[in-house]
Amino acid sequence: MAKRIAYLGPQGTFTEDAALLHDKTAQLIPFPSIPAVAVAVVSGMAEEGVVAIENSLEGSVTDTLDLLIHESGVFIRKELVLPIEHYLLVKPGTEAGGVKVLYSHPQALGQCRNVIERCFPKVNVVAALSNAAAVEEMMVSTHPAAAIGTRRAAEIYSAEILARGIQDKASNVTRFVVLALTDHPPTGSDKTSLCFSFADDRPGVLCEVLQKFAERNINLAKIESRPSKESLGRYIFLIDIEGHHDDSLVSEVLKQVREVTSLFKVFGSYPRYTA
Amino acid sequence: MAKRIAYLGPQGTFTEDAALLHDKTAQLIPFPSIPAVAVAVVSGMAEEGVVAIENSLEGSVTDTLDLLIHESGVFIRKELVLPIEHYLLVKPGTEAGGVKVLYSHPQALGQCRNVIERCFPKVNVVAALSNAAAVEEMMVSTHPAAAIGTRRAAEIYSAEILARGIQDKASNVTRFVVLALTDHPPTGSDKTSLCFSFADDRPGVLCEVLQKFAERNINLAKIESRPSKESLGRYIFLIDIEGHHDDSLVSEVLKQVREVTSLFKVFGSYPRYTA
Repeated sequence: MAKRIAYLGPQGTFTEDAALLHDKTAQLIPFPSIPAVAVAVVSGMAEEGVVAIENSLEGSVTDTLDLLIHESGVFIRKELVLPIEHYLLVKPGTEAGGVKVLYSHPQALGQCRNVIERCFPKVNVVAALSNAAAVEEMMVSTHPAAAIGTRRAAEIYSAEILARGIQDKASNVTRFVVLALTDHPPTGSDKTSLCFSFADDRPGVLCEVLQKFAERNINLAKIESRPSKESLGRYIFLIDIEGHHDDSLVSEVLKQVREVTSLFKVFGSYPRYTA
Repeated sequence: MAKRIAYLGPQGTFTEDAALLHDKTAQLIPFPSIPAVAVAVVSGMAEEGVVAIENSLEGSVTDTLDLLIHESGVFIRKELVLPIEHYLLVKPGTEAGGVKVLYSHPQALGQCRNVIERCFPKVNVVAALSNAAAVEEMMVSTHPAAAIGTRRAAEIYSAEILARGIQDKASNVTRFVVLALTDHPPTGSDKTSLCFSFADDRPGVLCEVLQKFAERNINLAKIESRPSKESLGRYIFLIDIEGHHDDSLVSEVLKQVREVTSLFKVFGSYPRYTA
């Protein structure tokens, strides 16, 4: 039986692209939300799940961070980094000058503001719930329409590509993680993701933790804070470090960090992505 | 002449609520994007601008952080914290059982998932570009429809409130900032927001900076990292500290931090918000 991979659907989104890059022989199963992808993995509907965690322009995907913090039983097994390329799609034969309506997810629209404002200043923008839904709705529109979508969505819905790479910033990449019931054994070039918080907010507690990593020359690949959901002003810190939690040096520091923090959770160790 | 305040429109959004809380005698001018609000202040179309910077569930508003990092000439003059209350709005006389279509901004939908999934499991969800547009579109819908919107949008569009407080988490607050050409003089209970980055990524550089604040007992109210836009893996750090940049202790530390960082920018000092 082919491996089943849950992903944030529908078909034609960037997450489907990431799942295909991860394993193109697997059976891909779309789910309607990021928490649903985690439930699919925990409950055994799928062996793995693929979700976005960070975009170079937009920042972190908060649904994924919150899932890693609060959901037990899923671990990061792999990371993938994909370039994000937005396409302007139309029904075959539609010309740029005739476009009256533009379908787009609000986030994609925000990433393509320059092209839209310059080339389609008077277009009527209609919001869609996903990049794929934008293309689907464009294809059944009764007005001359275009949609901001993925190359994969163009294939699925038989849309014509009017323009490619229409995002404002050329260097737009998204990092995805593969979730599973266990993380990855050591490979020699690994990363570890974890979170922690403090019972008391005196100055310097975060610094004490970072110092423990710095003293052992363990590099910090990322630091992020999330509001604790109780209030603004109380934070959970999320960090990525270089190394595997089974490495003796890393393991020793993590034990020390656990002792000085209140919440402490390792999301998993996994091979560092190389294109 | 009344003070002119630019805000992220349209009318009926939470940002308009924040602008009204800040100064209800001012002339409020809606702008179509967060960068446009900053341009309005810098160019003199408005004396002040109001934008959201952080939500307790969703995290930071990345457009606002990027604006503070990259736009010169605007400073944070004030902060405001507002509870975010989502309402379910309908055309007068529409009953809950008859609702077939739901208009919502994708983010508001994400915050109200429980009520929608339980009470309206078969509703056809239509995306809108803002919380206000959702209500406007609902009011002209030819199907029995509802919209997720604000109380102010109910007033503006003469919609009926079917349910209040429909968000999943009761403690949902958003922090807004007032932008102006200058920040605020010291009041004795202030905060200062700033950002910095490092030319080199060796372990411990961030810690050295945080240590400087900790040593002088200056509390860190918030830490955040943003990808530098060049690539994932290089970060700009944003922190809020207690105190005013004109306080001698803070001023001295900031000078030291400037010396060990590459990018360094103070977004402003302003009175700490108290409800």
